[in-house]
Amino acid sequence: MKIKPLGDRIVLKKVEAEEKTSSGIILTGAAKEVPQFAEVVAVGSGIVNGNTIDMEVEIGDKVIYNKYAGTDVKIENEEYIVIKQEDIVGVLV
Amino acid sequence: MKIKPLGDRIVLKKVEAEEKTSSGIILTGAAKEVPQFAEVVAVGSGIVNGNTIDMEVEIGDKVIYNKYAGTDVKIENEEYIVIKQEDIVGVLV
Amino acid sequence: MKIKPLGDRIVLKKVEAEEKTSSGIILTGAAKEVPQFAEVVAVGSGIVNGNTIDMEVEIGDKVIYNKYAGTDVKIENEEYIVIKQEDIVGVLV
Amino acid sequence: MKIKPLGDRIVLKKVEAEEKTSSGIILTGAAKEVPQFAEVVAVGSGIVNGNTIDMEVEIGDKVIYNKYAGTDVKIENEEYIVIKQEDIVGVLV
Amino acid sequence: MKIKPLGDRIVLKKVEAEEKTSSGIILTGAAKEVPQFAEVVAVGSGIVNGNTIDMEVEIGDKVIYNKYAGTDVKIENEEYIVIKQEDIVGVLV
Amino acid sequence: MKIKPLGDRIVLKKVEAEEKTSSGIILTGAAKEVPQFAEVVAVGSGIVNGNTIDMEVEIGDKVIYNKYAGTDVKIENEEYIVIKQEDIVGVLV
Amino acid sequence: MKIKPLGDRIVLKKVEAEEKTSSGIILTGAAKEVPQFAEVVAVGSGIVNGNTIDMEVEIGDKVIYNKYAGTDVKIENEEYIVIKQEDIVGVLV
Repeated sequence: MKIKPLGDRIVLKKVEAEEKTSSGIILTGAAKEVPQFAEVVAVGSGIVNGNTIDMEVEIGDKVIYNKYAGTDVKIENEEYIVIKQEDIVGVLV
Repeated sequence: MKIKPLGDRIVLKKVEAEEKTSSGIILTGAAKEVPQFAEVVAVGSGIVNGNTIDMEVEIGDKVIYNKYAGTDVKIENEEYIVIKQEDIVGVLV
Repeated sequence: MKIKPLGDRIVLKKVEAEEKTSSGIILTGAAKEVPQFAEVVAVGSGIVNGNTIDMEVEIGDKVIYNKYAGTDVKIENEEYIVIKQEDIVGVLV
Repeated sequence: MKIKPLGDRIVLKKVEAEEKTSSGIILTGAAKEVPQFAEVVAVGSGIVNGNTIDMEVEIGDKVIYNKYAGTDVKIENEEYIVIKQEDIVGVLV
Repeated sequence: MKIKPLGDRIVLKKVEAEEKTSSGIILTGAAKEVPQFAEVVAVGSGIVNGNTIDMEVEIGDKVIYNKYAGTDVKIENEEYIVIKQEDIVGVLV
Repeated sequence: MKIKPLGDRIVLKKVEAEEKTSSGIILTGAAKEVPQFAEVVAVGSGIVNGNTIDMEVEIGDKVIYNKYAGTDVKIENEEYIVIKQEDIVGVLV
Repeated sequence: MKIKPLGDRIVLKKVEAEEKTSSGIILTGAAKEVPQFAEVVAVGSGIVNGNTIDMEVEIGDKVIYNKYAGTDVKIENEEYIVIKQEDIVGVLV
């Protein structure tokens, strides 16, 4: 069971705070309170009202997103955020 | 008696939470409190002010929608949501 | 005495709730509290600022409208709603 | 002393409620509380930022307007409303 | 010392209420409380972001303006309002 | 140390109220409470998203600005306002 | 571990207030309370919905930004702000 995001939306899976992520970031306590790091698990087609938007993120990217944006979804005990690309502010590289 | 949605609108029928749906999702308690899964029962023409918007969902799709959007309608004891496509965030696949 | 709606506006006449309408809908108690079904009695030209908008409803259509939109008007003891087409979400068919 | 409205504005003169108007409407008590019928006394050129908007009302028309729109003006003890055409919802015919 | 308004702005000088103006209007008490009549003392070029907007008022015109718009300025004990043309609703003729 | 404003922004330096400025204005007490006169000290390129906006003010101009707009900046004990041209309402001439 | 900003976003690193920066600015107490000076550490591609926006700042620039804009991010004990170029008001030169 997966979510196929529509248009310029992206599905994110929250990264557990205060653990060493696969990328090696140590998220601090403050960051834990407002977790805003997540991993991309699905990317939409980028077609919005007939226009094509370049989707700049890929599955597996660790991203920083605008914590007040997006829709929280829980499927089979996993929490996801479905969010528009414009609310993803950057990629960790 | 059915609803023909205008423009880029879609008619959804709420999926009962906490039951195994035909797609096999087990919606958890938290999800039940804020049900936001629904099934597409009708799709508009996609014509909005002379422009044609690609309708990306089909009748029968299970979708996740923005719970603060759309208009609730009750006809013959069934509850429907008439919603614009832009407020549907993804399709369960 | 009738209302000729301007532009993309439509004149609606409220449908009495909890009676069997000519279309056979039984509106329930909940629906009565927030009646949002109405019948189209007049349709504007669709010309808005020089552009022509396709008017998708016809006189006699039973429609569902956004209950927070439009202007309520009372003429000769009949209540009407003058509303833009974009606030009509669907037609009962 | 008259008001020449600018652009797509229209000058309206309030119609006294609860009297038989020249058009034969009997406005009811409820309508009197929120009078929203008025007579067109002047029509602007329709030129707005270089574009020409079709002015669909004429002097003498009885119109229904959006009661929260427009600017109230009192000149020589007469009350007028100067309002944009888009806030006039219909003409009584 | 004068104000040269930028773009589609206009400089107005308030007309003293409850006096007979040069135009012969008698402004009533109510009008005094919310003075919204003024005289045009300067008119901008009408160029806004490379587009040219027709300036429909001239120096000396008595105008009615939207009382919640514009910027109040006091220079050498005279009060002026610098306002965009779109907030001037009409000219007294 | 100077500020180079980006796009259609302008850097202003507040004019001391209640002193005779070089332009000869006497700003009154009321004006002092809400100082909104300033002198242009730097002008941006006017390029905004690939479009070029005519910059209508020059260094040295005394301008009147919208007091709720712009960003206050303090550098080496001098206070500046960095503001978009659209929030400058006029130039003193 | 770095942040690659998307679109017209820029990554800033806060400049410590009340110390002499490499540019020689002495930020005062007031400025410390509302720090709004920062150094550019990464610049996005400038591609937004298929259009290219000129990125006017470079890595190493000291900039002044709108303190209510952007997203605060903490990585490995360093605080960053990811912000759109339109919220950077000027560059210190």
